[in-house]
Amino acid sequence: MTANSADTGRVPYDDLVSEFVRVLRATGFDEERARRAARLFADASRDGVHSHGLNRFPLFVATIQQGFVRVDGVPERMTAFGAVERWNGNAGPGLLNAEFAMGRAMSLAREHGIGCVALQNTNHWQRGGSYGWQAAEAGMIALCWSNTKPNLPPWGAREPRLGNNPLVVAVPREDGHVVLDMAMSQFSYGQLDTHRRAGKLLPVDGGYDRAGDLTRDPSAIEASERPLPIGYWKGSGLSLVLDLLAAVLSGGKAVHQITPEESGLSQVFIAIDPQPLSGGTEAGIADEVVAFVRSAAPVHDGDAAHYPGERSLETRRDSMAHGVVVDAKVWERVRTM
Amino acid sequence: MTANSADTGRVPYDDLVSEFVRVLRATGFDEERARRAARLFADASRDGVHSHGLNRFPLFVATIQQGFVRVDGVPERMTAFGAVERWNGNAGPGLLNAEFAMGRAMSLAREHGIGCVALQNTNHWQRGGSYGWQAAEAGMIALCWSNTKPNLPPWGAREPRLGNNPLVVAVPREDGHVVLDMAMSQFSYGQLDTHRRAGKLLPVDGGYDRAGDLTRDPSAIEASERPLPIGYWKGSGLSLVLDLLAAVLSGGKAVHQITPEESGLSQVFIAIDPQPLSGGTEAGIADEVVAFVRSAAPVHDGDAAHYPGERSLETRRDSMAHGVVVDAKVWERVRTM
Repeated sequence: MTANSADTGRVPYDDLVSEFVRVLRATGFDEERARRAARLFADASRDGVHSHGLNRFPLFVATIQQGFVRVDGVPERMTAFGAVERWNGNAGPGLLNAEFAMGRAMSLAREHGIGCVALQNTNHWQRGGSYGWQAAEAGMIALCWSNTKPNLPPWGAREPRLGNNPLVVAVPREDGHVVLDMAMSQFSYGQLDTHRRAGKLLPVDGGYDRAGDLTRDPSAIEASERPLPIGYWKGSGLSLVLDLLAAVLSGGKAVHQITPEESGLSQVFIAIDPQPLSGGTEAGIADEVVAFVRSAAPVHDGDAAHYPGERSLETRRDSMAHGVVVDAKVWERVRTM
Repeated sequence: MTANSADTGRVPYDDLVSEFVRVLRATGFDEERARRAARLFADASRDGVHSHGLNRFPLFVATIQQGFVRVDGVPERMTAFGAVERWNGNAGPGLLNAEFAMGRAMSLAREHGIGCVALQNTNHWQRGGSYGWQAAEAGMIALCWSNTKPNLPPWGAREPRLGNNPLVVAVPREDGHVVLDMAMSQFSYGQLDTHRRAGKLLPVDGGYDRAGDLTRDPSAIEASERPLPIGYWKGSGLSLVLDLLAAVLSGGKAVHQITPEESGLSQVFIAIDPQPLSGGTEAGIADEVVAFVRSAAPVHDGDAAHYPGERSLETRRDSMAHGVVVDAKVWERVRTM
């Protein structure tokens, strides 16, 4: 590891993968599945999504040891009709189940133009954006989402009864895929924690304090357990419908049935093949849209509006050239697991 | 019209429909299409969506007279592959084109489990929620969205280069369909106008003032032209991907190509038939989810969290029992058109 500062370092991508493989093999993963899962964790750190890469890896291993995640659980088809299928994730590793489900939705899309796979009884998919990148790299449009445990109060209520239900939308583009990966809460609890530890306020209001006032103070929101849905009543509604769709289509658990360990999640994967409609002739429109948005006059001179996925790609290039940035303590912990 | 206050009154639903039919027939609509369009406008007012019901009707007629909307323009299929189709709206009335496209997506879903219709060269669909209700009433899940002219600055930029791109998600439910209908801006320009006229601040920050500070003052946002996307950077990203999907799938215009009159929009309609997957056995889960959310401890005593579509249904019942609430001036204007 190259020293960077007291807290972070740089590690070659391949070293991350091989350490993850070693630890996963020890938990009972077979070689092929260990490699797939290791790559997904390493890709998240490589792209700068540290919360669902290296930093989440020890928790993932713990959920295996606690019996919530079955290393040999593989998806099983329950029902199928045309371009729509329902699968049981059999409590397998969430990221392998999700990668499989998106791949299956893509196969259906190649056959029918669009494909939809609803997955029940799965586990945390870690970085949701992974499955958007997976589709975009194959030239496919993707929409997918997961439910979560209740961690967000509905608009107008005090108690967490909605999930932050991450939503991923991906559009392939030669000069950089557009991949949106967003949860329905304005800030995750992980982000509240990071800001509090750094002694920083949030950049915008992130929730309510115990007195019921909007606040940028992360610790006040942690205390009230009232983080804010994106767009107030709008994100509250979007979170609800994403959960309904996941539970109704998969036949699995809805948010209110999901326990704090978040085992037994429900997810939906939709892939659309844009080729048969256009013959690829409209590839240029995506570049035009992105260029139009990026060239808007910035609020701060020298800055620019970004498209979703742009920073991931920049971080990826930097990581592959100079090593993946890691939290030194977590990296040492994984090396001794 | 029953007097209600100086500014509003109540009109029987059937009177609204017949006045709209009369005016539309005079613009050149045939009887059947006039009835369909009239019903969609009346339904919006009936459900409390005044901005896209009666109040929008005079503008709709003006766009016909100006030649932006062709009363006899009907959708034409351009390409098809399995469960996905691309249609040209031929500059027809946006609400008839949208109703047709959702119906077509539903037919595809009955055949393939899921159906997707991308529509180019169409016009403003008025109330987007209409097409969610249309699907839900037939027992179908629906997702649909439209692009718009540029009216929203991307996160980090000053200039409006995104659309507020309304998104609709509908889930059928026996005790009241769940229908989310939300634009990507926290408040529409119509809502800013309403608040300013009433001398009211917005309930939450709605955009930036000219100095670049977040504000609840509607006139300050009208002056800066910097309304806020829902969830700041998150809604900014969601708006962008919805536009990309609409333009790439339909082969039509993206936001940056759409002029202030908003003719030539692009839209996507996805329908999913939940029956073949479940045999209808999971109908109860939607009720459970809604009940869980509605029973959350409220911020204000006696209040309750609502599900998307709940208030529309309440307003609908009231409108059918006591007459549809109308703006008295607009109603008189339509009666003399």
